[in-house]
Amino acid sequence: MNQEHISRQFDADLEGLRTRVLAMGGLVEQQLIRAMQGLKSGDMAQIEQVIATDRQVNRHEVELDEACNNVIARRQPAAVDLRMIMTVVKTITDLERIGDEAKKIAKMARDIHRGDTRVVPRVDLDPPAEIAVAMLRKALDAFARLDVNASAEVVRQDREVDSAYKAAARQLITFMMEDPRTISSSLDLLFVARSIERIGDHAKNISEYVVYLVKGRDVRHIGLEAMEQEVARPLGNP
Amino acid sequence: MNQEHISRQFDADLEGLRTRVLAMGGLVEQQLIRAMQGLKSGDMAQIEQVIATDRQVNRHEVELDEACNNVIARRQPAAVDLRMIMTVVKTITDLERIGDEAKKIAKMARDIHRGDTRVVPRVDLDPPAEIAVAMLRKALDAFARLDVNASAEVVRQDREVDSAYKAAARQLITFMMEDPRTISSSLDLLFVARSIERIGDHAKNISEYVVYLVKGRDVRHIGLEAMEQEVARPLGNP
Repeated sequence: MNQEHISRQFDADLEGLRTRVLAMGGLVEQQLIRAMQGLKSGDMAQIEQVIATDRQVNRHEVELDEACNNVIARRQPAAVDLRMIMTVVKTITDLERIGDEAKKIAKMARDIHRGDTRVVPRVDLDPPAEIAVAMLRKALDAFARLDVNASAEVVRQDREVDSAYKAAARQLITFMMEDPRTISSSLDLLFVARSIERIGDHAKNISEYVVYLVKGRDVRHIGLEAMEQEVARPLGNP
Repeated sequence: MNQEHISRQFDADLEGLRTRVLAMGGLVEQQLIRAMQGLKSGDMAQIEQVIATDRQVNRHEVELDEACNNVIARRQPAAVDLRMIMTVVKTITDLERIGDEAKKIAKMARDIHRGDTRVVPRVDLDPPAEIAVAMLRKALDAFARLDVNASAEVVRQDREVDSAYKAAARQLITFMMEDPRTISSSLDLLFVARSIERIGDHAKNISEYVVYLVKGRDVRHIGLEAMEQEVARPLGNP
């Protein structure tokens, strides 16, 4: 094999990894949407399907991890190629955990709809869930198009999902205090709200890895303002 | 530089990564212990210190990630050496998230002890916290000594921490139902209990990476029994 051939093979490897991450991301997004639908409708078949499909999410993670290790061992990547692979390794961990949260939401939905005598408070969790889905989609988009501006938007949206979570939590606590019969189902909904908020955190993590991939600078833990500055900085200008 | 020299340098690199992971693990363990002490004592100086020290945990993560990338780019590791580095990359993500949970516990402790009129239920969270600390310690030990039997013990203990969490949650829900004035502080304690349970999950993740490192097989998501079989299997015997 000549050098050019090896290099084309390597590009195909990297492209393969990227495609599989996006497929995993699509599956995880679908899990989250279906879990929220199940929570609303009480459709037990759908709820059970979300719970069962989590195995598929896990399989994606394990297979992608192995594929990343193989590419590193065979191709000995450096610089941006290595950053791409490390971004994949980290992204799939967060996607798997979003999958776990979707499964937890489905389990809460099962608990809520199975108890026929329970008093369920009317608190709408769609607003935070819609922000979380939008964040996940945009983070995957940022990864697909190497778009650091989309990354910055995801980080900004994390504040929105946090405040939508807090609003829902306050409502739920009010319900519990006014009618102790709602405590049990309010708690289930509170944990759903918490899962949604965590999904936002994971989407934020993914979008931060994309900045690292494109810019070569680790922007975790530095705060929104510093990250926005980094995103605005022209490439190759330290 | 001759081959032997390079190889010794490489060993020193790997040893350096291992040592730094253990230092980060020690810091995270200390954070968890101090957060739980703060919850009990209400010592505000200690609580604030835990919250402030989370930055140090984050710094460890960022620096270790960078060090791993440098070692991969310079040494082009394969087989067990590459597995070691990938184990470090994954382990530090879980350690950082344990650090986040410790910080959340400290924030809950601050909320609970700041509100002087609040009725706080007497539910002891030391039992689950002690299991979680023991799991974290054992997972770090498994990593330090490449001890897959210790890994299996951690996975077994995850069941204990889950049931200690559930017992605490049941008690807290009873308090809330009997005295709605306790709802607010019971919820804070419930979230602390939930953080402890998650710390157990992270310790379990770390111990699973050690099995992967030593045995070359990914044992995540396969269940306790299958993992125990894998741990019992002699090395090099597929």
